[in-house]
Amino acid sequence: MAMNASSCPAPSFAAMTELEKSMESLIVIFHRYAKEDGDGKTLNKKELKKLIENELPTFLKSQKNPKTVECILKDLDTNKDDKLDFEEFLPLIAGLSLACEKCYLLNEKKGMK
Amino acid sequence: MAMNASSCPAPSFAAMTELEKSMESLIVIFHRYAKEDGDGKTLNKKELKKLIENELPTFLKSQKNPKTVECILKDLDTNKDDKLDFEEFLPLIAGLSLACEKCYLLNEKKGMK
Repeated sequence: MAMNASSCPAPSFAAMTELEKSMESLIVIFHRYAKEDGDGKTLNKKELKKLIENELPTFLKSQKNPKTVECILKDLDTNKDDKLDFEEFLPLIAGLSLACEKCYLLNEKKGMK
Repeated sequence: MAMNASSCPAPSFAAMTELEKSMESLIVIFHRYAKEDGDGKTLNKKELKKLIENELPTFLKSQKNPKTVECILKDLDTNKDDKLDFEEFLPLIAGLSLACEKCYLLNEKKGMK
């Protein structure tokens, strides 16, 4: 299965499906914060902190560790450059989506009672 | 970093951030197709085919292999039960988002010229 940049010739937003729009949002949100300082392609600790505070407040509130942002950065930063590129950032989205899916299934089950 | 179902106490949609809404969309879209046949928690080949045809038409058109859906199912089905649960489905979203991010960066670069 080939998935490279040529697989995604960027349809216009209006023509995009709901799933395509969700994926584009992930990219746009990441780059919105990555642009604040530095090179615009990676999140440094300050940018990651701002992204998590602004975009994932429910998750952040659920974390008891005051060093949550540092822990996330350390966990995800596979090349140890103290920054996250989009590829390193994606497992956070995957992990949170998976946790939320468990919620979704629990809520669905409750709704069926 | 703890990410379990209790990390995600489902804020109301109106109060959700853009990133939270994008993650919810991934979950809702997956389950919309997973519900069509069977148990509602997994995509069988037919449901995966329908999801890809409806939700990822740009990607599907870019694939030359007529067995794209079969290949994706085989690639992602880690427990070899011929179905994808949400956890197995997520790498497709991650892979496509990463491919699209490369496009996004290329288009940004072009825009800057």
